[in-house]
Amino acid sequence: MKKLGKRVALLIAAAAMCACSTTAQTEQNATELTPEQQAAYENIMTRTSIRSWEDKAVEPAKVEMLLRAGMAAPTAVNRQPWHFVVLDKRESIDLLASGRGGGMVRKAPLAIVVCGDMTKALEGDAREFWVQDASAATENILLAANAIGLGAVWTGAYPIGDRVNGIREALGLGEHLVPLCAILIGYPHEHPTPKDKWKPENVTYK
Amino acid sequence: MKKLGKRVALLIAAAAMCACSTTAQTEQNATELTPEQQAAYENIMTRTSIRSWEDKAVEPAKVEMLLRAGMAAPTAVNRQPWHFVVLDKRESIDLLASGRGGGMVRKAPLAIVVCGDMTKALEGDAREFWVQDASAATENILLAANAIGLGAVWTGAYPIGDRVNGIREALGLGEHLVPLCAILIGYPHEHPTPKDKWKPENVTYK
Repeated sequence: MKKLGKRVALLIAAAAMCACSTTAQTEQNATELTPEQQAAYENIMTRTSIRSWEDKAVEPAKVEMLLRAGMAAPTAVNRQPWHFVVLDKRESIDLLASGRGGGMVRKAPLAIVVCGDMTKALEGDAREFWVQDASAATENILLAANAIGLGAVWTGAYPIGDRVNGIREALGLGEHLVPLCAILIGYPHEHPTPKDKWKPENVTYK
Repeated sequence: MKKLGKRVALLIAAAAMCACSTTAQTEQNATELTPEQQAAYENIMTRTSIRSWEDKAVEPAKVEMLLRAGMAAPTAVNRQPWHFVVLDKRESIDLLASGRGGGMVRKAPLAIVVCGDMTKALEGDAREFWVQDASAATENILLAANAIGLGAVWTGAYPIGDRVNGIREALGLGEHLVPLCAILIGYPHEHPTPKDKWKPENVTYK
């Protein structure tokens, strides 16, 4: 996890000041965060896409931590309609690269292909909730990577047919598995500043 | 954020032991986490759906922290195709409840309706990437809520037509906004143990 970003520090300070200037002690306490709370919040704010990695394997214990984080995501009606394909060998990564293309894939030390498992998906209109469930799992993995000193990028597949079929064929996945994305992961070789995407005009209060 | 769960503590201990028993000091260090890293990881593992809240408003500064967390999510081609409708008044929450139904909605102190903004979405097959982008934003908001002492639940709308139309009409949203979900948020009145959803059979190594 990166150190407290200037933006986040300012935000937390602003929250505290806002509480001080407008309300009593009780509300001030409510917006003061413990160091653990700050660390958890900052981890969300400092995550950014990492596309360049050290030539170093990710330890199996850390891979398991990423997978556990993925499966901690919420799912519609608790169906957990997902499957995770871990590519931790050079030849497997190369297979993925052949199906998904791009030199970036080939250079990743680790990839996790997050799939929907259609045997566990809901039925009817609700079937497509698997996309949201698998997306939440993907975001959890990206955030867990940032938390434990790794860097990752989400490369989308579904609903682009060519990409879905390319990955499925390259990895020999069953027809019931639909690759949502491939997350490329490793120890970061770059440390870009997270994009500032805060836009008040994206919010309506009602 | 809840205190270190027993499961997470065991996992971190297991990771450290694994490194100790199999490899040199360098790998042991790699799987040892700082307190800040642990806090960030635990926040992901301790998030769980909260459906009962104290009768207490969420401070505006905290609402802004949630929205900033949402907009910190990654989006395909950085399109940020989203809009956030904040319902922080009793009558607005009641409006949402009329469109989405359920006593749970009516009891929520705060709701954020996460929408796709079709004027910003990609075109062609890639248009549906907005669902993944908005889902990542939703998960960020759930995790930020857990981080700063709030509790939240994701109630799905899209792609269920009745729910999408019900929310859109109740809140008077433009046709270009597609409500993905309504996140109900407040200070938790319940403290359930997070579900253990870890299933090794959901993983394939290649």
